[in-house]
Amino acid sequence: MTTEVRLSPRERLLEAAATLTYRNGVGIGIEALCKAAGVSKRSMYQLFESKDELLAASLEERSAAFVAKLLPAADDGRSPRERILHVFEQVELQAGAPEFRGCQYLAVQIELKDQSHPASQVARRVKGNLLAFFRAEAEQGGASDPDLLARQLSVVFDGASARAGIGADNLTGLIAPTVVTLLDAAGMR
Amino acid sequence: MTTEVRLSPRERLLEAAATLTYRNGVGIGIEALCKAAGVSKRSMYQLFESKDELLAASLEERSAAFVAKLLPAADDGRSPRERILHVFEQVELQAGAPEFRGCQYLAVQIELKDQSHPASQVARRVKGNLLAFFRAEAEQGGASDPDLLARQLSVVFDGASARAGIGADNLTGLIAPTVVTLLDAAGMR
Repeated sequence: MTTEVRLSPRERLLEAAATLTYRNGVGIGIEALCKAAGVSKRSMYQLFESKDELLAASLEERSAAFVAKLLPAADDGRSPRERILHVFEQVELQAGAPEFRGCQYLAVQIELKDQSHPASQVARRVKGNLLAFFRAEAEQGGASDPDLLARQLSVVFDGASARAGIGADNLTGLIAPTVVTLLDAAGMR
Repeated sequence: MTTEVRLSPRERLLEAAATLTYRNGVGIGIEALCKAAGVSKRSMYQLFESKDELLAASLEERSAAFVAKLLPAADDGRSPRERILHVFEQVELQAGAPEFRGCQYLAVQIELKDQSHPASQVARRVKGNLLAFFRAEAEQGGASDPDLLARQLSVVFDGASARAGIGADNLTGLIAPTVVTLLDAAGMR
């Protein structure tokens, strides 16, 4: 990680927490985080109550970028069907990067195994918003059962990105036909 | 965890490693594992070279049970379509248990973030066998593209069990229609 000199200690800690947790998992130590951020432990504890709070704040901080990278613009004029496909095209693109390890908001929940952890709660909310996006587009596109379609798309999203993240599948030629099949079966325009 | 008196120290360590890793993650300490198994650290290191090797051996040990709980008997006389659906019925059943945390062989790979870790390699092989089962049944059932269908089923397997494991979805009314849609689109008998 390159530490940019213009960032505040708080920003550097958030960046280090997001980056190192994604790369190494939630077990990453406070020392490693502070070292990567170039911030003393004392300063860290002045800024964040605990490592748990730092992790939760880093996921919150990254959520806008997560959404911006995946979701289409609100008024892009495309059909709901195309807007849903856009999300999955982004996943396939992201999965092509060598540093891709799957969806951070899924991984952190799997790793923490504690739904009441502040970071799990942030992750849950972020992914809940993705489900809500699918649900709204499904309804807009006249899906026969928008709830079911939104849940199916979330399963494909999490399954595909997890499998790509562990190197079990490169997703090539996989996601688009799968999503199209589900959209067709739901009668989506 | 109840420690059964008839188990050998080796068996108790394998059981503790599998159970505690599933519940708490791969970061679980050697001390906690030895304590749960009722085995000294010294004895542990006489039986296993490292915690990594213990974890890998515990996943290997559980793989037969994993397969037996999910897959139909080799010669049960049902159609490939029904044999595939059987796997997903088992996932839905397992996901109903309060202690369900998703597929251990996916979780361990997500948590370790290291494909060369001995436990990741065991997990990868076990899930590769599941993909091969889907592939063989897809071919047997006349799927138009058995490779694609097997990959799709693996995505649904991992996505659905991960989402159930983190409490994002209870899978009710979700898996069967999703799998049936994919089987139908592939022209499976």
